[in-house]
Amino acid sequence: MSFLDGLTSPAQIRDLSLAELEELAAEIRRELVATVAVTGGHLASNLGVVELTLALHRVFDTPRDRIVWDVGHQAYTHKLLTGRRERFCTLRQADGLSGFPKREESEYDCFDVGHASTSISAALGLAAARDAQGGTEKVVAVIGDGSLTGGLAFEGLNQAGHLKKDLIVVLNDNEMSISPNVGAISSFLSRKMTSDLFVRFKKETQNLLTHLPGFGRDLVNLARRAEDSLKGFLTPGMLFEAFGFDYVGPIDGHNLAELEETLRNVSRLKGPSLVHVLTKKGKGYAPAEVNPSAFHGVGPFNAETGEIAKNPKAAPSYTSIFGRTLVELAEEDPRLIAITAAMIEGTGLEAFAKRFPERFFDVGIAEQHAVTFAAGLACHGRRPVVAIYSTFLQRAYDNVLHDVCLQNLPVIFAMDRGGLVGADGPTHHGVFDYSYLRHIPNLTFMVPRDEVQLRRALATALAHEGPFALRYPRGESLGLKLPAKITPAPIGQGEKLREGKDGVFLALGTLVGEALAAAEELAGEGIEMAVVDACYLKPLDRTLLVAEAQRTGFVVTCEENALPGGFGSAVLELFEETAVTARVMRIGLPDAFVEQGTQQELRARHGIDAAGIARRVRAALGRPRQSAAGIAG
Amino acid sequence: MSFLDGLTSPAQIRDLSLAELEELAAEIRRELVATVAVTGGHLASNLGVVELTLALHRVFDTPRDRIVWDVGHQAYTHKLLTGRRERFCTLRQADGLSGFPKREESEYDCFDVGHASTSISAALGLAAARDAQGGTEKVVAVIGDGSLTGGLAFEGLNQAGHLKKDLIVVLNDNEMSISPNVGAISSFLSRKMTSDLFVRFKKETQNLLTHLPGFGRDLVNLARRAEDSLKGFLTPGMLFEAFGFDYVGPIDGHNLAELEETLRNVSRLKGPSLVHVLTKKGKGYAPAEVNPSAFHGVGPFNAETGEIAKNPKAAPSYTSIFGRTLVELAEEDPRLIAITAAMIEGTGLEAFAKRFPERFFDVGIAEQHAVTFAAGLACHGRRPVVAIYSTFLQRAYDNVLHDVCLQNLPVIFAMDRGGLVGADGPTHHGVFDYSYLRHIPNLTFMVPRDEVQLRRALATALAHEGPFALRYPRGESLGLKLPAKITPAPIGQGEKLREGKDGVFLALGTLVGEALAAAEELAGEGIEMAVVDACYLKPLDRTLLVAEAQRTGFVVTCEENALPGGFGSAVLELFEETAVTARVMRIGLPDAFVEQGTQQELRARHGIDAAGIARRVRAALGRPRQSAAGIAG
Repeated sequence: MSFLDGLTSPAQIRDLSLAELEELAAEIRRELVATVAVTGGHLASNLGVVELTLALHRVFDTPRDRIVWDVGHQAYTHKLLTGRRERFCTLRQADGLSGFPKREESEYDCFDVGHASTSISAALGLAAARDAQGGTEKVVAVIGDGSLTGGLAFEGLNQAGHLKKDLIVVLNDNEMSISPNVGAISSFLSRKMTSDLFVRFKKETQNLLTHLPGFGRDLVNLARRAEDSLKGFLTPGMLFEAFGFDYVGPIDGHNLAELEETLRNVSRLKGPSLVHVLTKKGKGYAPAEVNPSAFHGVGPFNAETGEIAKNPKAAPSYTSIFGRTLVELAEEDPRLIAITAAMIEGTGLEAFAKRFPERFFDVGIAEQHAVTFAAGLACHGRRPVVAIYSTFLQRAYDNVLHDVCLQNLPVIFAMDRGGLVGADGPTHHGVFDYSYLRHIPNLTFMVPRDEVQLRRALATALAHEGPFALRYPRGESLGLKLPAKITPAPIGQGEKLREGKDGVFLALGTLVGEALAAAEELAGEGIEMAVVDACYLKPLDRTLLVAEAQRTGFVVTCEENALPGGFGSAVLELFEETAVTARVMRIGLPDAFVEQGTQQELRARHGIDAAGIARRVRAALGRPRQSAAGIAG
Repeated sequence: MSFLDGLTSPAQIRDLSLAELEELAAEIRRELVATVAVTGGHLASNLGVVELTLALHRVFDTPRDRIVWDVGHQAYTHKLLTGRRERFCTLRQADGLSGFPKREESEYDCFDVGHASTSISAALGLAAARDAQGGTEKVVAVIGDGSLTGGLAFEGLNQAGHLKKDLIVVLNDNEMSISPNVGAISSFLSRKMTSDLFVRFKKETQNLLTHLPGFGRDLVNLARRAEDSLKGFLTPGMLFEAFGFDYVGPIDGHNLAELEETLRNVSRLKGPSLVHVLTKKGKGYAPAEVNPSAFHGVGPFNAETGEIAKNPKAAPSYTSIFGRTLVELAEEDPRLIAITAAMIEGTGLEAFAKRFPERFFDVGIAEQHAVTFAAGLACHGRRPVVAIYSTFLQRAYDNVLHDVCLQNLPVIFAMDRGGLVGADGPTHHGVFDYSYLRHIPNLTFMVPRDEVQLRRALATALAHEGPFALRYPRGESLGLKLPAKITPAPIGQGEKLREGKDGVFLALGTLVGEALAAAEELAGEGIEMAVVDACYLKPLDRTLLVAEAQRTGFVVTCEENALPGGFGSAVLELFEETAVTARVMRIGLPDAFVEQGTQQELRARHGIDAAGIARRVRAALGRPRQSAAGIAG
């Protein structure tokens, strides 16, 4: 029997010898690889923190002591150690274990996460609450070097250093976030830093000498600069010391003895401290060590060979079509600039980055900056495309509104992972963007229904003199043949795809296809529904939508977005403004966070697939399925 | 004739002697005080940057070279120097000069601002656009030490240090943002830093010696820590050097010669550099030097005495009633914690901070952190109240959704400055919160119509086991007598305030009073409108709202929010769900950014005051005013 089999609480690992622990670490790695090979999930990051997680649960008295995982996709070992081994095979599946910490799942999970850079703020809140109640438990935030790029992490560091509360931040430094890391802080943390600074110091000194004769007060300033550069000969610790933290490290994140001893010492410190731990993504599994990006978030793969399962017949993903189209458009339009927030692969920008290195910017996990930086570019004649997941653009809501739309700047928001994303669950579904963007003045928002329209949407965005958002889903496209020439679409014009006299589906994006299939199904029962692709969430095609409503008297809106404030809501507003009195039925996602599951499972569960849509129409028209066939529409 | 009178372009100041410049500086200060004494506005910050602004426009070739002002409320001197002297008396008034830089106002304004911490990101975008076009102009961001607390500023620094583009950041350090500054970075920048660090070093050394005998490997770590602390003996420059910036300073921000010489030197540097300038808020005007907080954003005052105009008969502001109520509730409930993002006075928390220093947190200009920190506190039994302006909560949209509402945590968002704020204009109106919060699951959102209801809303929030938002307006309350005892209101229950058979006003917040006045006006013309205070944006009082719609068949929704996705939109959704077929008319703000002006001017202009509401109803019912008197309803 393996050790993991009998493990129900981390208390059980606290008496193990170093040799036993190392065996356990190896067993955990085998379990991680075997499970994720089947379920898919985040592998490389989890392999990197096996020893760190063991050491944390041995040194700290969990669940009394509290560990806050930043992002949380690296908490699989934590789950295995805290009574969730049996359910581990259900990872990321409908009704299974979450791929992230969840308070409702375990008392060992003390803060729900998913988006980056929240852990220091949350841990500081837990520490302040502890002090308010006279508690003595320890609070630990575990944050990757990638997440440290997010401004929120700095806001947390800044207040933590000020309050001087007992708080331990573990910096899990693997020199990459999801794509290899960028940013000044990243190179500062890098082990190559010292030599880099040395080169710079020499340059400074030369400058100083060159300028020595005859520059009067210039000299004073140059001397000042040289002095400051001299002060740059420092460890990464300086940065954190500047924020008022005690800095310890860097230490080897795969050396259990060193990890435990250091964490034990740090646990006795007063005030905020930061332990800098060096880990290797993919550690212990050769395919993931060699290619950590591919094994960051990975689908099923062959555990033995590391070969990632591919459906040879699969159509290209929307992401890849976006990336390829952007390169084509950039060849024609030198104004086009691409920006990503640490998601080069995720947003399909590898080819663009290679082809146009000067016109490509990876800003790190810093969505707010990505958008305001784009606003600056757009102010001065460039056409920036911010390629970003719908859920992560939430971080930059104010930047979209205040920095881009208020100035009516031509920034393009290419939102990938719009709608349901599947296994990543509620923190990652892109099901609020219609609602959080629709009310922003000056914004145009187009929703392509397929890859041909996606290409058109990009060309349309590029030709438009103002802010432009488009969203497309995670996963495979429809496999359509792509016309080489891409022509912009008229702004705010919908498209009627099917005739029908009993009512009309007004749909957007993915749900256009579902509405067409529902119409087909209903037609077989004698219910003739027209289908209109509204094409735009904003501006709506007022003429077409009003005409269809008046013609049929029965409108069914279909959207892969939360219903409140969404597309159906926009249609209701339009009909109020135009005094249209048609009956309206809105189909979309409920006013609740949507759980994890495959995209198709979730669409079915929430009734936004063809079957669900047909069911709603049947019910609305009072025609049960079995008896519908004989009734004329 | 004064120098300012003949000034149409900053080119004219480039040949002045030092003595002439100093005279000009004095004249500008007189102009600033005289104008703001009449118009109201931001005074202290503007008085602090007179010399800095003169030096910038002399050293840099504006408008070719570009200056991006962070926040922008300190750009009055910039406006006076760039051809806007004649219109300066219209500052912050309807159709007058904006209190912030605006691209449409002048070619010297190169990026629109209002919210904090955007300047580095925007300037970096301008610099990248310049380089893409082979330009040679200089780009300068001017940012206060307060704005540096915002994570967005760090995200900008991080990428700027990485890209190494030519960019100058001027840090305008007056040791306070709006309230006196907080945060580790602030004390790091402070001139008191060195002595503080020295004390710490001594403590560390003592610790080391105390622990010397017999601690084995502990010693190594302690030595490491001491070593790092030693490295803490550094200038503020270190922080920026860590980000890859060349640091110059600190220099005296009121010494024109030193400013110019330094800026001239810095303008020749390659790569990113930061000039640290020390200024004094309120400089040169004694009342503002003594009390810079009071003269941060100030109404009309007596220029000679510095006495701020007060209406002795004015009712207390909503802000002050909020602050006082929070103290009362905190006396009863030890779980209550108050959090502000650098707005102690603005949100009325001075008394709370004094009475409960241990339960009060000013996190600096860091709205995202404020919310996620609150989530941490709420996770562990506390009841945090985030007191924040509606417009600034936009920065924390994702934190509200992802960190608070997804976990259904009892965080209270007390949104001040909800609705139109007046002279600060489009960057500051709180007219989107209904739209950006309504679609977030688990959130309860109450909108008190007066100060009695505001007190009730707070008690209701405190008694509620989940996230709770409330919003109240800028300005005076109604002057009602406040019952000492505050009882929580039932969740989601509206209140019928007036009977009427011809239709019903469904209103929220400030517009309840306007709807009542409109109903009164219409009653005189024989139109009998009922008035319902919906009380909650979410959840709606479904029973009451549906019953009233069915009873009257004519519903008029009234809200001080943008119409898309707002309250009226929620009512339309409710009626769709419940198949109510009443006629609905929505009254609110248009799908456009609303300009500056007094609150009452703007309400009238956009037809959301009593007169505008009555007019809409009359038109809808087809009854011109003059002929209405004789017609029975």
